[in-house]
Amino acid sequence: MRVRELADWLNATFEGDGERELRGAAELEKAGSEDLSFVSSPKYWKLAEASAAGCLISTQDFLSPGRTVIRANDARASFARALYRLYPMPKAQAGVHPSAVLGENVTLGDEVYVGPYVVIADHVRIGARTRIYAGSSIGSHVVIGEECLLHPRVTLYDSVEIGDRAILHSGCVLGADGFGFVMTGGRYEKFPQVGTVKLGNDVEVGANTCIDRAALGVTSIGNGVKLDNLVHIGHNCRIADHVVIAAQTGLSGAVLVDEYAVIGGQVGIGDKARIESRAVLGSGCGILTSKIVRSGQTVWGTPARPLKDYLEQLAHAARLPQMQAELRQLREMQQRSAGQQELQLPAPDEADLKS
Amino acid sequence: MRVRELADWLNATFEGDGERELRGAAELEKAGSEDLSFVSSPKYWKLAEASAAGCLISTQDFLSPGRTVIRANDARASFARALYRLYPMPKAQAGVHPSAVLGENVTLGDEVYVGPYVVIADHVRIGARTRIYAGSSIGSHVVIGEECLLHPRVTLYDSVEIGDRAILHSGCVLGADGFGFVMTGGRYEKFPQVGTVKLGNDVEVGANTCIDRAALGVTSIGNGVKLDNLVHIGHNCRIADHVVIAAQTGLSGAVLVDEYAVIGGQVGIGDKARIESRAVLGSGCGILTSKIVRSGQTVWGTPARPLKDYLEQLAHAARLPQMQAELRQLREMQQRSAGQQELQLPAPDEADLKS
Amino acid sequence: MRVRELADWLNATFEGDGERELRGAAELEKAGSEDLSFVSSPKYWKLAEASAAGCLISTQDFLSPGRTVIRANDARASFARALYRLYPMPKAQAGVHPSAVLGENVTLGDEVYVGPYVVIADHVRIGARTRIYAGSSIGSHVVIGEECLLHPRVTLYDSVEIGDRAILHSGCVLGADGFGFVMTGGRYEKFPQVGTVKLGNDVEVGANTCIDRAALGVTSIGNGVKLDNLVHIGHNCRIADHVVIAAQTGLSGAVLVDEYAVIGGQVGIGDKARIESRAVLGSGCGILTSKIVRSGQTVWGTPARPLKDYLEQLAHAARLPQMQAELRQLREMQQRSAGQQELQLPAPDEADLKS
Repeated sequence: MRVRELADWLNATFEGDGERELRGAAELEKAGSEDLSFVSSPKYWKLAEASAAGCLISTQDFLSPGRTVIRANDARASFARALYRLYPMPKAQAGVHPSAVLGENVTLGDEVYVGPYVVIADHVRIGARTRIYAGSSIGSHVVIGEECLLHPRVTLYDSVEIGDRAILHSGCVLGADGFGFVMTGGRYEKFPQVGTVKLGNDVEVGANTCIDRAALGVTSIGNGVKLDNLVHIGHNCRIADHVVIAAQTGLSGAVLVDEYAVIGGQVGIGDKARIESRAVLGSGCGILTSKIVRSGQTVWGTPARPLKDYLEQLAHAARLPQMQAELRQLREMQQRSAGQQELQLPAPDEADLKS
Repeated sequence: MRVRELADWLNATFEGDGERELRGAAELEKAGSEDLSFVSSPKYWKLAEASAAGCLISTQDFLSPGRTVIRANDARASFARALYRLYPMPKAQAGVHPSAVLGENVTLGDEVYVGPYVVIADHVRIGARTRIYAGSSIGSHVVIGEECLLHPRVTLYDSVEIGDRAILHSGCVLGADGFGFVMTGGRYEKFPQVGTVKLGNDVEVGANTCIDRAALGVTSIGNGVKLDNLVHIGHNCRIADHVVIAAQTGLSGAVLVDEYAVIGGQVGIGDKARIESRAVLGSGCGILTSKIVRSGQTVWGTPARPLKDYLEQLAHAARLPQMQAELRQLREMQQRSAGQQELQLPAPDEADLKS
Repeated sequence: MRVRELADWLNATFEGDGERELRGAAELEKAGSEDLSFVSSPKYWKLAEASAAGCLISTQDFLSPGRTVIRANDARASFARALYRLYPMPKAQAGVHPSAVLGENVTLGDEVYVGPYVVIADHVRIGARTRIYAGSSIGSHVVIGEECLLHPRVTLYDSVEIGDRAILHSGCVLGADGFGFVMTGGRYEKFPQVGTVKLGNDVEVGANTCIDRAALGVTSIGNGVKLDNLVHIGHNCRIADHVVIAAQTGLSGAVLVDEYAVIGGQVGIGDKARIESRAVLGSGCGILTSKIVRSGQTVWGTPARPLKDYLEQLAHAARLPQMQAELRQLREMQQRSAGQQELQLPAPDEADLKS
């Protein structure tokens, strides 16, 4: 499409060659003369100047005379929107593949697509324009909203509810049993998991991510929540709106996460912990059982502590060899000045590692 | 069902209104007049007194005159059993769906259910009343016991053996190749993984969990073992009876876990480590290669050490700023008292983090 | 097969009973008179001498008069090769199962196998002798090389490209959307992920592992790369040839890994970090965003540092109680020698853990 058309569609102004044809998009370093790229921060201006991109989306303050530029307040967001034009989604399919197996009392909205080998149990309701791809399995009494996209091989256990516009990636499993057992007579008996899972609107769930059903009640995921791949959400967690959780993070049972919290990858959160709104959990950190992370706080490490404390502690730890040297020196001076006075030192710890 | 009937079925006594009708179960805070709830420890008595639950299961020592109460020695276990009555499982299906693909010499026990699009290879034996749901894939020479439940989209590779009453959640993969390679001529060649995987009775395997086959011999999982979601069990591990492993934990190759060990979430265990009976591994801890965790020990941290040591070390680390202040003071006093004596300090470490 | 035949096939010499019949292989401790085993290092000589194995593959320096031994320079590699003879792979199937659903313009090479309930979208090219097992889902415009093995229930999203001889284990997902969002107006909008995933030749991908497509461009995996189970590779990562990554490790976006790097299990790597060639990342370590791990370095811990520093720091940390005792003693001596001079100590930190 031409630069002029794209700018129009973005409600933006442009400078330079409005008739230039764009056929794709790329990063600054790789873009060619038919590619769109973008520059969102002064730290990339140098790279942008050197870029061979046919057109850049940038803020007003990026000066580049002679270049073809589309101006936007949020260059990254406008670029994201432009991608939908440059890479149009394949036309959504509709209809039910003859190989799909549908139970009794299944209600399908308009233009729903059900792919090959999808199995839908009884009493299921699926909203308009939702697409369910090959090999997915939908349990009984499941409710799915409108315009959802279930990639191949998604599993929804019985009674799971999904809002509108969800994107569920391949291999994710929603509604499997929570991990609850009662030890009786020397063996673990299953604590029946009779609750369910509910997702709000505009939720995205990554590939092979697992969200367990509640023991009693609901494991709930708010509106606009984005979960990356291989995440584990334990039974009875409640995640509020607009929370993001990066890959391989795990939440134990009954964790509460308030809105706009940002949770890094490989984070572990203990039972009943609470993450208040807009808190940020650094990648790999560990939150102890029942711990509260305060609103807006950024924490790191295990057990997690405020970022400032964490960095200080790292710095102190790095200074340990120096502290030991100082101690030794002080001891020697003391001995010299104290003369015959004797210094009793504890024996070195046998557990010292390789020292 | 009525309170009187439920108490009878639990072999328990009740106080209060035996005719009260119960229609569900809920946590103390959320239970209404037709809900059963339970109170298992004095720490929840306050909550229990305020609860609107129609009936509580509790121990004898919880006094609540006027309330309808079912008495049980282990209130949680009795409540778990009651859930099976209040939420009866859907009647188990039986029969083979016409779309299932069965190989040669497949033996099915009585009342086995094989769902749509299940694929079963040759020489497979499946015990009575076992149910295999949609899209699961069963390799050749697999043996599955009685009354097992395979949720949708489970994969069993060739020759895997499963005992009775297993519950395998959606997406789990049993018997994939162990991770073994030989570096020859600058490239990794596959070390063929010709062993297999055997599960005892009453094992539960979480969603998307992976148990690799042995290189030679068997990766074995004992009776009553419970694995949470997204767990990785490497080749040649041997897990004894009644071990529980929480989500996202990984065991490298040839790890031995003795009976009743309890392993938290996101734990990492190195090759050939041994976890003795009833040891407890705190969430997120790391066990080094060939390390032995002694029977009954609780360990934490990386590298894992006894909980007491771990907490002490955390406390010491938290006291580091104070130690540095003391050192500085001592140095100053020393200098003052020593007068002209000169103190040589090592230069600060350039690697100090942000300090 | 007989020892003589096996030695011939391995191009190796043997000593002892060339007519001995071998029917299997086992570890030294478990091998019986009809089993092959191997001994690759002097540290296992004792075990090898005590082994009941019918034949051992060993290097020349292992002396064991009277034993039947096949000599090899790399005993482990030769043993691995022997396993292919002792445990011949089931004859590869070929042909397209009648239940498979193939789109338009799908090109299949010679002797391709497509199993039951496999779904292949339009414009897909599959090389000769590649086998795709039950329930796998192949997106449009996918290209798969020759002699690949896709285990049951693999998902390839649109446009993914796979080289020759790949082994993709059950449940792995290649080409799901990278985790990219733009916060606009208080909600996360999807940053379209219009790139793809390319794998070189001889790649193995573990069960339930996820490799995300690039936002723009390509997430690329080099020749001979081996990924274990439950690994996460974020969008735009570039992994060079002959890299191995153990289970449950996660790479954020745009990580670069150079050839022959060895990455342990449960490692976390931040955005845009670079792991240079032959670097070794210890299990569980954490690499910060944009960090560079130098060629050949072995690092450990979080944040990761050279192994030597890590061990030193652990040793220093273990010595902390002793340092505190020394400090206390010095203080007392100082006070005694300084007489009335007063020592002001900071108050103990209230945050001290359980101390």
